[in-house]
Amino acid sequence: MSNCLVPDPTTRGPRRQDALSRERIIAAAVEILDRGGEGQLTVRGLTAHLSTGRGAIYHHVVGKEDLLAAATDHVIRQVTADVASDGEAEPAIRGLALGIFDAIDTHPWVGTQLSREPMQLAVLRIWTSMGIQLQRLGVDAARVSDAGSALVSYILGAAAQYAAGPRTVTGEEDRKAYLDRLAATWLELDPNPLVAEAGVQLREHDDREQFLAGVDIFLTGATGSPRPSRPAP
Amino acid sequence: MSNCLVPDPTTRGPRRQDALSRERIIAAAVEILDRGGEGQLTVRGLTAHLSTGRGAIYHHVVGKEDLLAAATDHVIRQVTADVASDGEAEPAIRGLALGIFDAIDTHPWVGTQLSREPMQLAVLRIWTSMGIQLQRLGVDAARVSDAGSALVSYILGAAAQYAAGPRTVTGEEDRKAYLDRLAATWLELDPNPLVAEAGVQLREHDDREQFLAGVDIFLTGATGSPRPSRPAP
Repeated sequence: MSNCLVPDPTTRGPRRQDALSRERIIAAAVEILDRGGEGQLTVRGLTAHLSTGRGAIYHHVVGKEDLLAAATDHVIRQVTADVASDGEAEPAIRGLALGIFDAIDTHPWVGTQLSREPMQLAVLRIWTSMGIQLQRLGVDAARVSDAGSALVSYILGAAAQYAAGPRTVTGEEDRKAYLDRLAATWLELDPNPLVAEAGVQLREHDDREQFLAGVDIFLTGATGSPRPSRPAP
Repeated sequence: MSNCLVPDPTTRGPRRQDALSRERIIAAAVEILDRGGEGQLTVRGLTAHLSTGRGAIYHHVVGKEDLLAAATDHVIRQVTADVASDGEAEPAIRGLALGIFDAIDTHPWVGTQLSREPMQLAVLRIWTSMGIQLQRLGVDAARVSDAGSALVSYILGAAAQYAAGPRTVTGEEDRKAYLDRLAATWLELDPNPLVAEAGVQLREHDDREQFLAGVDIFLTGATGSPRPSRPAP
């Protein structure tokens, strides 16, 4: 496996004693990505942001892929660290799912990066947290792997869709207009009553609620018992 | 909505009577994408492939986004057309899910394109086919929208992960070596027994079977009744 995906600072020789740590570079990368997206993440941008030279950057990071994976892990680590390990498993699973959803909403580049490389550290982190909670929820040991993979695929798939969709249209009015146009176009293309219903739902639904409804469908399927209805947090 | 996503040839004025139809250009785009991926899809490549000029291409297509969306729809339309509308709903849903899985396995660019623009025609097509089958399966009308969205998000998320993952490593031996290295790296990073188990499963699991296990978890959750175990087709 290339160390682009699982960077290990110990392989980079002795640390320099200056203030520029790998952690500081990654934090700067997150800021640049949040502000301008992936296209803005260049070594030139980093050297300017950190008032340093290229050599100092390359002393700590291998390249853009390494940085993107590390920045993604930086964001996801905060989400998984927030999941209580001692409370009830079910709220923990919902909290983890929503935490990832919100992280991708706030940092859309995280959604792109997570689906680009399913074997990276951040995905392992999500998978492990989810697996621990599924076990605590009583999911059969033999089924935890399938159930965990299915839930992680759902979360990444849904979050990527929401991140790529109408959320790229900023402003509530623009979003409504976008969804109205879309629903009308769908109906023109396919007069099926189901599509009409989907159009109405599209305009009226709440992304987070629909996302959580999917998590609940999944939990019902994984445990064999229906989840109680509850309002979205 | 831009007509990049829902191309409508009638907006392009009267068709020329030559042999170069929009359909032929899209078929050529699929071939180019299959051979070289998205980077190879250029107007220059198309003019060479079709022995024509740029003007002839632009007479039928708006640009690269239009072509990518149309090529994706071309592939997905074949999958949804294969779903029997008169047989049992449950095998139809599994067949549809596997059909999309296999289409993305054969044409990895379809996976990328489907997650890039969730509101495109191909996604609507998948969503509608799935919704019709979920209704036939007896899922509550009020729940079809949530259940359909959840299942489509799962399918797109899982297919994108499989397409991006070890499948990019060609050859069975290379794939095994890749998964061995990955499992070892995971264990170094996190000695949790769950991760050890995941490592074993990673080496031994079958992507299609794991994918179908996830489809069954969602169907159980959506209908409230467990799916019978069955071998992967």
